Formats: sequence, structure tokens, C-alpha cells
Amino acid sequence: MIEQHLIVERTVRMALAEDLGPGDVTTQAVLDDSPRGTASLMAREPLVLAGMAVFEATFIRVCPDIRIHTEFTDGALISPGQVVSTLQGPLDAILKGERTALNFIQRMSGIATLTRRYVEKVKGTRAKILDTRKTAPGLRWLDKYAVRTGGGHNHRFGLFDGVLIKDNHIASAGSIAQALENAKRRIAHTLKIEIEVEDMAGVKEACGAGADVILLDNMDPALLKEAVTWINGTALVEASGGITLDTVKAVADSGVDMISIGELTHSAKASDFTLRIEPLL
Amino acid sequence: MIEQHLIVERTVRMALAEDLGPGDVTTQAVLDDSPRGTASLMAREPLVLAGMAVFEATFIRVCPDIRIHTEFTDGALISPGQVVSTLQGPLDAILKGERTALNFIQRMSGIATLTRRYVEKVKGTRAKILDTRKTAPGLRWLDKYAVRTGGGHNHRFGLFDGVLIKDNHIASAGSIAQALENAKRRIAHTLKIEIEVEDMAGVKEACGAGADVILLDNMDPALLKEAVTWINGTALVEASGGITLDTVKAVADSGVDMISIGELTHSAKASDFTLRIEPLL
Amino acid sequence: MIEQHLIVERTVRMALAEDLGPGDVTTQAVLDDSPRGTASLMAREPLVLAGMAVFEATFIRVCPDIRIHTEFTDGALISPGQVVSTLQGPLDAILKGERTALNFIQRMSGIATLTRRYVEKVKGTRAKILDTRKTAPGLRWLDKYAVRTGGGHNHRFGLFDGVLIKDNHIASAGSIAQALENAKRRIAHTLKIEIEVEDMAGVKEACGAGADVILLDNMDPALLKEAVTWINGTALVEASGGITLDTVKAVADSGVDMISIGELTHSAKASDFTLRIEPLL
Amino acid sequence: MIEQHLIVERTVRMALAEDLGPGDVTTQAVLDDSPRGTASLMAREPLVLAGMAVFEATFIRVCPDIRIHTEFTDGALISPGQVVSTLQGPLDAILKGERTALNFIQRMSGIATLTRRYVEKVKGTRAKILDTRKTAPGLRWLDKYAVRTGGGHNHRFGLFDGVLIKDNHIASAGSIAQALENAKRRIAHTLKIEIEVEDMAGVKEACGAGADVILLDNMDPALLKEAVTWINGTALVEASGGITLDTVKAVADSGVDMISIGELTHSAKASDFTLRIEPLL
Amino acid sequence: MIEQHLIVERTVRMALAEDLGPGDVTTQAVLDDSPRGTASLMAREPLVLAGMAVFEATFIRVCPDIRIHTEFTDGALISPGQVVSTLQGPLDAILKGERTALNFIQRMSGIATLTRRYVEKVKGTRAKILDTRKTAPGLRWLDKYAVRTGGGHNHRFGLFDGVLIKDNHIASAGSIAQALENAKRRIAHTLKIEIEVEDMAGVKEACGAGADVILLDNMDPALLKEAVTWINGTALVEASGGITLDTVKAVADSGVDMISIGELTHSAKASDFTLRIEPLL
Amino acid sequence: MIEQHLIVERTVRMALAEDLGPGDVTTQAVLDDSPRGTASLMAREPLVLAGMAVFEATFIRVCPDIRIHTEFTDGALISPGQVVSTLQGPLDAILKGERTALNFIQRMSGIATLTRRYVEKVKGTRAKILDTRKTAPGLRWLDKYAVRTGGGHNHRFGLFDGVLIKDNHIASAGSIAQALENAKRRIAHTLKIEIEVEDMAGVKEACGAGADVILLDNMDPALLKEAVTWINGTALVEASGGITLDTVKAVADSGVDMISIGELTHSAKASDFTLRIEPLL
Repeated sequence: MIEQHLIVERTVRMALAEDLGPGDVTTQAVLDDSPRGTASLMAREPLVLAGMAVFEATFIRVCPDIRIHTEFTDGALISPGQVVSTLQGPLDAILKGERTALNFIQRMSGIATLTRRYVEKVKGTRAKILDTRKTAPGLRWLDKYAVRTGGGHNHRFGLFDGVLIKDNHIASAGSIAQALENAKRRIAHTLKIEIEVEDMAGVKEACGAGADVILLDNMDPALLKEAVTWINGTALVEASGGITLDTVKAVADSGVDMISIGELTHSAKASDFTLRIEPLL
Repeated sequence: MIEQHLIVERTVRMALAEDLGPGDVTTQAVLDDSPRGTASLMAREPLVLAGMAVFEATFIRVCPDIRIHTEFTDGALISPGQVVSTLQGPLDAILKGERTALNFIQRMSGIATLTRRYVEKVKGTRAKILDTRKTAPGLRWLDKYAVRTGGGHNHRFGLFDGVLIKDNHIASAGSIAQALENAKRRIAHTLKIEIEVEDMAGVKEACGAGADVILLDNMDPALLKEAVTWINGTALVEASGGITLDTVKAVADSGVDMISIGELTHSAKASDFTLRIEPLL
Repeated sequence: MIEQHLIVERTVRMALAEDLGPGDVTTQAVLDDSPRGTASLMAREPLVLAGMAVFEATFIRVCPDIRIHTEFTDGALISPGQVVSTLQGPLDAILKGERTALNFIQRMSGIATLTRRYVEKVKGTRAKILDTRKTAPGLRWLDKYAVRTGGGHNHRFGLFDGVLIKDNHIASAGSIAQALENAKRRIAHTLKIEIEVEDMAGVKEACGAGADVILLDNMDPALLKEAVTWINGTALVEASGGITLDTVKAVADSGVDMISIGELTHSAKASDFTLRIEPLL
Repeated sequence: MIEQHLIVERTVRMALAEDLGPGDVTTQAVLDDSPRGTASLMAREPLVLAGMAVFEATFIRVCPDIRIHTEFTDGALISPGQVVSTLQGPLDAILKGERTALNFIQRMSGIATLTRRYVEKVKGTRAKILDTRKTAPGLRWLDKYAVRTGGGHNHRFGLFDGVLIKDNHIASAGSIAQALENAKRRIAHTLKIEIEVEDMAGVKEACGAGADVILLDNMDPALLKEAVTWINGTALVEASGGITLDTVKAVADSGVDMISIGELTHSAKASDFTLRIEPLL
Repeated sequence: MIEQHLIVERTVRMALAEDLGPGDVTTQAVLDDSPRGTASLMAREPLVLAGMAVFEATFIRVCPDIRIHTEFTDGALISPGQVVSTLQGPLDAILKGERTALNFIQRMSGIATLTRRYVEKVKGTRAKILDTRKTAPGLRWLDKYAVRTGGGHNHRFGLFDGVLIKDNHIASAGSIAQALENAKRRIAHTLKIEIEVEDMAGVKEACGAGADVILLDNMDPALLKEAVTWINGTALVEASGGITLDTVKAVADSGVDMISIGELTHSAKASDFTLRIEPLL
Repeated sequence: MIEQHLIVERTVRMALAEDLGPGDVTTQAVLDDSPRGTASLMAREPLVLAGMAVFEATFIRVCPDIRIHTEFTDGALISPGQVVSTLQGPLDAILKGERTALNFIQRMSGIATLTRRYVEKVKGTRAKILDTRKTAPGLRWLDKYAVRTGGGHNHRFGLFDGVLIKDNHIASAGSIAQALENAKRRIAHTLKIEIEVEDMAGVKEACGAGADVILLDNMDPALLKEAVTWINGTALVEASGGITLDTVKAVADSGVDMISIGELTHSAKASDFTLRIEPLL
């Protein structure tokens, strides 16, 4: 993804400004001169790697002279103890970039790793695992990239690139049919129209009014199956609402096309990495 | 905190730009005119509330005409089903701000709630629970505010407002004593000097060289106790390294002054809220 | 559109900085004290009004004390000599905002007026008039808003909210069918898939591979008709390429659903307005 | 112009952010790997070339690996079918930059081409063709550069680098003479003083009070000639107001030094270019 | 100056971010609740007041609830012990804004006060006191405003709003006459042309080639007088170069129109103010 | 200091935008083609050099092709007439960067030079010379860097990285002891606690309550000595308030650890440099 560097550049700049502020007081005070050092990035638990471009860009922004050699590409399965990347350059620059660079890949690999677990669970079904807009403010692009890296798919990026008609839109428009009619008349022809329904009556009304995608919110597997059968391929079907690693297989078995999981981006545990730094004495 | 609004303003502006981009295509297409609506923010699980100023600022930025009445202050313990806040204003504005506002408080309340659990665990000991710099890039101020809201304390904000001499600094300087001497000579007199050590030899050298704070990294409770006894109040003592809800009490019982926990900000589960929106038809 | 103010705010800020720089040297030098004045915005030719919110925001940003009373809403047909809006406030503020405010509405009304002429031409056909991404850099939102104000519809906003597979994508993928298969597998389910074809062979291959929208580029009305007949409602049909006010009716009569016109935003003539300012002496 | 790159950098960054947003969904989905490609920029009508530095900077910003070879310099007269520039690099990067790069040069070459037509019309007279501040908000520098490229001259850039006393300034100051006296006393000595007058009485009062430049607004050629004769070289003379390609020669023949034309930047038709992209298969 | 608020807003925002960073740790820790307080701004030496709008904007930005009553307008002569302004509002907000607000007016009043001393020295001569571009980076508008407040005049703001041909321009063009000819042909007609010369030969060549303004650099009073006599009103005359409070009167007596003094903005001593804050207990 | 380049980059960008605006009109008009030139930076008075990285970054930002060879490092004592640095590159780029680059080093070297004079005065005592937060808004990092370059030490950077309890904090808290108790309970353990007192009663109360640092404001040398004796090494001691080059030695002789001087950054005289530019003809 060639334009990735434009987004990464902006995010890294912001993150480093936040951590460095007017300067790293410890490193300035303790180091004499500016010795060179090396560093090895090592995983401390099994994980799906994500975010190496951001990791690298962070160090390069602190100091363009740091040389980085990364052994794996994003998406790789890493075992505990494996060295993912090695760095060589001015020791103070490595120390200044360390925390920020780790914060990026720990979050992103955590998301990718959790996504992979969901994807594994639904293997053999037609269901894709989707993310949501429940991301950390300012990090949506990175969060959604991490979901893709873990084998998931992205739902709309924001309010601007996908239509999702929810209960309040419906209430305000008067009915499911009226909401869909308004949308069809006014939405750019490049966008499909998705609508959220809560029961079979909603499913039927949405199908009748020509929804492209139907989101079945908080339905149990039996009801999902009934809906999928009724819809019968005339619209794509997404399931959402409180689905966990324990329940996702049953949901997928209902035959839905997609399952969206907020947990992927709002509650993934950070992956555990360590950066072993050594001065070249 | 009166300057909070300066940081909140900037963060909210960025988050809304990310989600709204060139506009909310669904709401524009489906709603006729601009009906007014109300919304109730409700908790769906027990939680420690954090981030209501950001929640409110998000909606006000979308539309200054939204009126918000919040029943609780940050830090309050909320039960499932309790209504935290009610809004009234243009329905489209409420719909546009919804996801961004929720993303803020779900993350922040999640952090506050987890912090509170750690704080409860160490009640009766002298130990304070501290955060780290392992925060989501761009959200450090909010993350650390949430830790305070949950009863925790903040470690340094960034590399610029606290000295923490780590093993690599020591290796580069030559010895613990030399690293501390360098720091004392060059650091602003407003900052204390903290140094990380890994064994009793380190503890003794750091004490001898006059460290203000000693960070005991990855020591078991017995060793921590030995260190605390040896230090005997001549320096503050912080413990860190892989401490969990299961182990924190034993660590605290060793007599350390502070325990820092990366999990608070890098792996807290988001709190579960819902925003019930209703058009005023 | 409630979020309009976020985009308008940013654009007005930038435009005023460009024109005012370190200050309006003439007004500062010539005016004694700061007399109040009034101003009337008058059309000098028939036009479709667009951009009044930007016009007003410009003056308010220069000086919050300016009072503005606008008689018409965007989309109104204005006759030469009609007063559109009246202002009252500090004369120097009115003089400082004048050119920037006029630049906005002259461009936007020019786009709306031209769009309306195309829309009128195709009345009675099923064809919608669409814009393109051929907008003035930095002004896309305003340009596209003006197209809607003139009765047109918006194509995708940018590269991120619509799929349009062009000849180079096809060449790189190997074939129309392969390009469509790639897109279907990887694109977010919220987006339709549009593909550009140049002849009937392309039309047939695109239909066969399940394109949602087919863009017929540079075809004459006879060929368009043939394509529309063949497609027969299985996909939406867009025509583009060198269509003018003279030829648009014939294109529309072919039965296409949409006609996109770059001229709307890259070559519309500015509408002619004048601002009659008078000091209150 | 060595500092051009500072302004171009900022403008290109903004324009690409507008078009790319969170990413080019089509290219990402359709292209396998990242094949290389070539592209030829070709004119489709006679035009005066302007903006090649911006065109190039756009692609370089998307991907520093794109190699560009431009055959002509800004100001060159290009015939339909002539190849202006060729690019080689990653195909996805070329596709991502295409529209933004074209939007820049189509607008700028359009302005340069129209300017050239005016300049040709007044050849043999003493009159220079000037632009105005009627530019697209945010693009003034590029618009005015394009005017120079077409053989025109720039009027003041903004309110800050030139004095132009208009009727409202005069009314507020009390008289032409008083307005000029105020300006002379307070204006930086680096700026000339220009004043707008509407009749011969104004011309005489302005000359008597020592104006450096007199702007004759909306006068017919006969009156312009009378004014020029009366002024007789004691001040520079500018004509403005509704002047077109049809009338500009008659205006120039009156002997004025400068003729300013808003149309150059607010209503120039975009020049027609095409970018022929080919994958290196 | 009505647009002042746009520049002040940006500068205050930047200055407060610099000083407050992630928060005022002292005030947060020491104050219980948020008591209200009052503050009096008092001069501790005789001074010319400058910058009160910036002073006020700083506090208002920290907290819109602070009420400020300022007794004097910029330009007023203040005696030691005089109260210039009083504030009332939340004590913590006053404490947070204090240093930043004082930094602005101490610098600006220092510049105004020094300027006034120069202006007093040349009273009775025709010479105006001018500033230069030797300002603190980022503060040029405020620095130059302070010069005007002290009775001085502004030279050009930057490289863009005034022409000043220096020795290197002349050397590159080949001769004074050639440099002036180039400038006349290419410069916007709104700008005068100033040229720097170092001896009588230069003066004569510049006059002959029609310079609008002649800058006499580093000439002694006798030579200045000779130059002024020779120029005899055909161009404005500026003197510059190492002029001090001790020598400025002799320079002015030579009959030059303007004397520019870098010291005004690069070496003015800060004015001494104190802010007496009192909690309302 | 490796991260210096991040701060320098931002500051240089801002300063050049301020000076160049839409372009250097003189250089564009007068220079034919773009000849190359050389430039020598020469001191015109004895000074302590500071800011060469900013000086260089300014020119590189204007034009990456300028080659710079700097003979001295920051902190060097330079004699009048010594050449500090030589440049070679496009003449117009050198002319465009000249004033901005000089403004930086004249201010920074001025601060370093004044600091050095204070440092020399207190040689042989234990006292360090400290700066304050009385810096030019936006330039604090550069100002404080210059103080270090001159041999001084930095007090806290802003309100966020050091605790300083002043009289108003004390009044609001109720007493010195209460203010210190509040601070100890709430302040991050990385920060020392400094408190300002005005008399011996304050000294005693602060010592008793365990202040880390005591700031003695506006005390005469005799009283300072009494305080130092009483404190007897239990806290660090800082003196401040109206201390000048004439009085600083007496203050230092009292035995205080630190002396803070606002004059260093708010009233230092700019150092005198000249840039001798020569075209390569």
C-alpha cells in the first residue's frame, strides 16, 4: 500500500512529539558523547506480526542514520523468543524511539493476533470476520490495517464511505421501507445500502425494499439461520452484537456472510515484545 | 483541571475529522429535514466512569446546540442499566457524534475500571498503583487522566518530565554509580533521579550513589522485600515487570512504595455503554 | 448539513490567511477610527445561489460583530439586481472580508448555475447529472456541494469512497473478469463496484462478471443505446467523456442512468456578484 | 523561483490528503502485487503549459521512486497530441497521483492559456495584462504563477502587499484627497498608493493629491483616453471592469499602462490533458 | 485593527501549548477545589504599554470565565506602581496563564518603550524611526505592532511586501542601473523600489536610474547630508547601520526621511511588570 | 541532542513562512537566471556561538543544494572578524534564507554570551546560573538551549516538568506546610518539590515540611547567607529576583546552589554577525 507512508508519517510525527516533548532528559544527561548501539526486537509470546512499517518509520524519524533489518513481513506468525528485527545506529536515538515504536506494534500485533483467532474459529464457513468503527481515536487506519493483517476484513472506514441505516434513522424516516427509499434516491451510486434490523419482520421489510446488505443485530443462531434462509442470497447478511470467541462459530454456522466484532479494536490485549538494546562499547 | 479543555479540544477535533471525513452519508440521505432527538447514555456493565468532558465536547463540537445533562462525575461507580447522561438536540448531530463520543468514554472508563481493581487489591498496603508510557499513541493525556480517575497515580508523562535510568544507560555510562553521577551533574534540579536495577548488587550500588528512586524490575516478592529492607527509606521504591491482578497483592506486601502496570493502558477492556437515541417525532 | 460547519471553518480560515496575511494595509491606513457600515450583496446576472454559509462564515471569522441577514437559501434562482444578503458591522471588517467571501460564492454559484443548465437539458429522461473528481484542489467539498445545490448528484468524493476500475486496472489484472473478481474478493461490502468499458465486448464481459455499475466512456448515443439495451437493468449505467450542453440530451435519451460532466467543476464560469458597501457616516 | 517548493509542498500535501483520504480502494483491491508502469502526459488541445513542478511534486509525494522526464518548461506552447512528460514507477502510485496531478496542471495551464490570449490581443500597445485577487481560495500562489507563465503580470498578492483605495475607503475618509493624505502618512514607504476613481473629477483630484497609480474603473475607451491624456505620465494608469477578449484591444489603445482581468483566474476553462498509463506487464 | 485577533489567536495558542504542555503540575497538586482569585497587573518601571490584547487573549484562552478590566490602551505612558489591568476568575486559570501573558507584554512594551526613546530623540526633524526584519522568529507581527505603538513606523513586513535591492543583488545584476531596470520591468506596480548604496557614486547612479527610495548604509552624518542634498527630494532617503540612541539625532539632522534601527526588535530590554495575584479566600 | 532536529525543523519552517510569505519579490525581479554564490558568516564582536544547527537548517530548508561548512561548534568563543561558517549554493536561495538564519543565531548567541558572563562572575562559588520561563513565546527550546551553550543550566521547561509552589499557591492552600503536604501526596514521584519563600519564617516552615528545593526570592546577601546556614544542606537553595551582573557575585558568595536570571532570555542583546555574500560571476 503505497500511500500508507503518508498516514504513517503523520501518525509517527504526532506520537513522537507526545513522548519526546522538549527532549529525553535521561539520555541527554547520562550518555557521554553519542555511542552507537544495536537492538533486537523479540517476541515474548506467540503473535501475528503487524505494524513493522510504523515501527521502522518511528526510528527513522528520530534519526535517519538508524539501519533496520526486519526478518518478517506483517502477517507472519511469530514464536516466543524469535527475533523480528534488528537495528543499528546512535544509541541515544534508539533509546528515544523505543517506547513509541513498541507502543505501535504492541497494539497493532495485538489486534492482528486476536483477529486471527476469530478467523481460525470460523474456518470452513462462508463468514468473514469484520471490524467496526470502535477504534482508538486517531488510530483508525492503523487499527483497521491490523485487522486485515490478521486475516479479517474491513467494514466502512468512517461515516463517509458506507451507508448503514440504524434504528434511529428508521424511526426518523417512518419505516424501513421509507428509509431505504430515501437512501436509494440520495446516496451516491458508488455505495451499497446496508440496514440494521432486529427481527424477522424487519428482515422481510428490508428485503422487500431492496436493501443491498442486512445487518442482523443481537439475534441468536437459530434466528440468524431463519433470516439467512429467508433472505436466500438476495442481500448480503452481516451479524453483530456481543459475539465472542466462544460463540462466533455458532454464529458463522448460521450461514451469514459477515460477522463484525468490536472487540478486535477496542479490547485486544497488547502483544508482548521486548527490545534488547546493547551499546557497542 | 482547567487546561484540560485545550487538550480535549484538539483531540476531539482530530477524532471527528477521522470519523466524519467529508460527511455522514447515511444521515444526510435518510433524514428529512433535521428533526430533534434525545439520547440517554447507559452503562451495560459495572464500571468506573471516566471521560465525560470528552464525551460532551465531542457532541458540542458537532453542534453547539446540543444540550447535555450529565448525572455523574468522573470516578463514579456506575451500575449496569444506570443512565449516566442525557442529550437533547438535532438528531443528525447526535447520530454524527455518537460513535466518536462512545469510543472515548469506552476506552477511558475501561482504563479507570481496571485501575480501580488494582487499587482495591493493594488496599491496606503502602503501595500506589502507577501507569507507564505504554499508552495508545496520541491519547496519552486521556489515558493517564483515566488512570487517575480510577484511583491510580501517574508515572512521568513522557521522556521529558522524569528521569529513569535503564540498563542500557548504565551500560553506556559504565556503571550505576557513573550513570547516577552524570545525571546529578546535568539534570534540572526540579527532577528526581530514578534508576532501574535487577538484583541486590544493583540496589546497593544505587543506594550508595544517592538515587532518589529505585525501580526493582522483575523481582519476586521475597527479593523485593529484601531490597525494601536494605533501602530502608533512603529512596522511594517502585516495582514493575509482569505484575497481574493475581500477583499484585504479594508485590505490595513486600513494602514497595509504588507498583507500575503497563496493562492499565495497553490492554484494558473497553467498558460497555449504549446510547439510546430517540427522535422527537 | 450539520457537519458542514467543520469543513467551512477550516476552509475559511485558510482563505482569509491567504488574503489578509499580516494585515490589510489600505484599510488600516485610510480609515480613521472604525466607522460602521452596511453592505448589500447583489447578483449581476441570473444565477443559482450557492455558498451563503461560507460567505457568512467568512465575515463572522473576520469580526463576530457583523450582523448578516440573508434573504435566500442556497439553490434559489436569483435575478440580476436582486439583493441576496445585507450586512451591518464595522466597516473595516466588511472591507477585509469582501474579496474572500465573494470568491467563495462566485465560484460556488457558478458551479450550481452550470449544473442547473445541464439538469434542465435532461429533464424528462431518467439520467442524473453527476460531477467528477476534477475539482479545484482543496475545494472539493465546496465544489461538490455546489453541484448538489444546482440539482446534480455527486459521484464518489475521492479514491476512498467508491470503486472505479479503469483500463489500467484491467490491463494490470489481466482482464475485465479478473479485475472484477479481485475487487469482489477484497473490497469492503459497503461499496459497489463500477468498471469502465469502451466497447460492447467490454459491456458484455462486465455484465457477465457481475459489475454493479458500468461506465461507458466516450461512446456515441447509438452505441450507448445498444449498451443500455444489452445491460437491461442488470447494472447501473453511467456515460462520460466530452459531453457538452449541446450533446447531453442525446446522451440522456440513450437511457443511461447517469451522466458525469467534468466541466461542472473544472470550467464553470464564476457568477457575477457585487457587494455594495456604504459607510454609516 | 527557489522558494516555490515550500508552497508547492504544502499545497500538494493538502490536495493528496483530500483525494486519497484513508486510501485508494480500487487500486488496492484490483492490483496484484505492485507492477511497474509508465505514463505519458499528452495535451489534447493547444495550450500554454503551466504547473509542471506541481505535477511532478504530486507524484513524488505519493512515491519517491517515480522517475519523471518532462520535455517542456512552463510557458511552452503545446500542440494537441504532443507528449509533455513521461513517468515510470510503481503502477499503483501513478494511479493514485493521477487525478490530483492533472487537476493542478489543467487549472494552471487553463489560466496561462487564457492569459496568453489577452496578452496577444494587446501586443503593440503599452498595456500589460494583470490578474486580480479573484482566485480560487487556497490556490492564489499557483493561480498567479500561471498568469505570469502566460505572459501576464501580477497585481498585489493580497491585502498586505499593495494599497488600493476604493470608493468605500474614500467615502469613509471624506474625500479622495483626504484618503490619499491618510495613506501617505501611514503606509510603509515600500508601497505605492493606488486609488480607484470613476470619472474625470476623480482623476483630477487623485492626480492633484499625488496618487502613484490611478485605477480607472468601468470607463469606456474614450473616457479612458481622456484620462490618460490628462494624467500625462504623472501616475501609472490601470483600467478594469468587465473587459473581455473582444474589448481589451480598444481599452489598450487608450494608452493605459495596465489592464486587470478577473476572468483570468475565476473563469478560465481547464486545459485538456490526458495521462496514458500502461502497465509494464 | 480588526484582523489582529486572527494573528493573536494563533500566537497565543502556540505559546500556551509551549508552557502548559500536558498540564500545570503545581497548581493541580496544591490547590484544593478551584477557588477564585483576583490579579492586578502593575508596572515596575516607566514604560510605554503594548500588547494588552495579547495579554487578555492569553487568559481568555486558558479560561473564558476570567473577567478582565484594562485601564489603559496600548501606547499609554505608564508610571512605576500604576495598575494597568485587573482580572477576576478561577485562581488556577490565572496562575496557568500568568507567565505566558507576561512574556508577551514584557517583550512588546520593551520594544515600544525603546522605540519611543528613539522617536523622542529625533523630534523636530523630518526623520521617522523604522523597524527592520530583525525580529524574534514567529513574533514579527507582534514586534512590529509594538514598534508602531511606540511611535515608530514599519519597514516592509517580509521579503514579499517591499523591494530592497542590496549589494549582492547589484553585483549579480551587474550594476545599480541594471538592477533597477530589472526591478522596474518585473516588480508589481504596487511596490516602490528601494536600493541600498554605500557612497556618493552609488547615490548618483541610483538617482539617475530612477530609484524610489535610496538606503544609505553606514554613512556618517556629513556624507548623509551630502547625499540628501544631492538627491534633493527626487527619492525618499533612509539611513541605516549601527545607529544608536547617542548618534540618532545627528543622523536625523542630516535631513534623511527615515532611520531604521535593528535594535528596536532584536535587543530591546523587557519591560518590568508584576502580576499581584490574590485568592478570594 | 538527536531529537533537536525535530524541534528545529518545525521552528525553521514557521520562521521561513513568516519572512518569505508568497515570495522574495526583490530577488525574483533582479536576478537573471540563478547564479551561484558563496557566503561567509563573520562575527563582528566577541561572542559565544550558539544556534549553528538552526542556521544551517534554515538554508537547507530553502534549498537542499546549499553546501555549508561550519568551522566552530556551539559554545565556542568567537573573536570579531572570525569566519564562523561558509556557504556555497544558488545565490537566490542564500539571499532568501539570510535574514531568518541570522535572526536565529543573533538571538541565540546573544543569550549564550550573556549567560557566559554571569557564569564567569560566579566562578569559584558553588552557584549554578539558571534560566527562567521568561523566554520569547515559541522559542523556549532554542532560548534554553542557548543558556546551556553559554554554561548555564536550565530550570524547568514549562509548567509540566517541575513543581514550583509560589505565594499564591501557599495562600490558597492555607500555609506552607499544607501546600507541601498537598504536593507530596499528589505530585508524580519523578518530580522534586520546590517552594518559594520570602523570609526566615518561610525558610523554617519549608524545611520542616520537607521541601526538596527552597527558592529565596528577593533576599539580600546577608539574609541569603542566614537562610543557607539554617537550611544546611537539607534542601537545595535557589536565589532569584532582580539579580544583575553587578550583584550576582555577592549572591553567589552567600552559598546558594543556584541563581536564576530572567534577563538571560528576556533582555539579552543580540550578537552582531554579518553574512558576506558574493556572487560567483
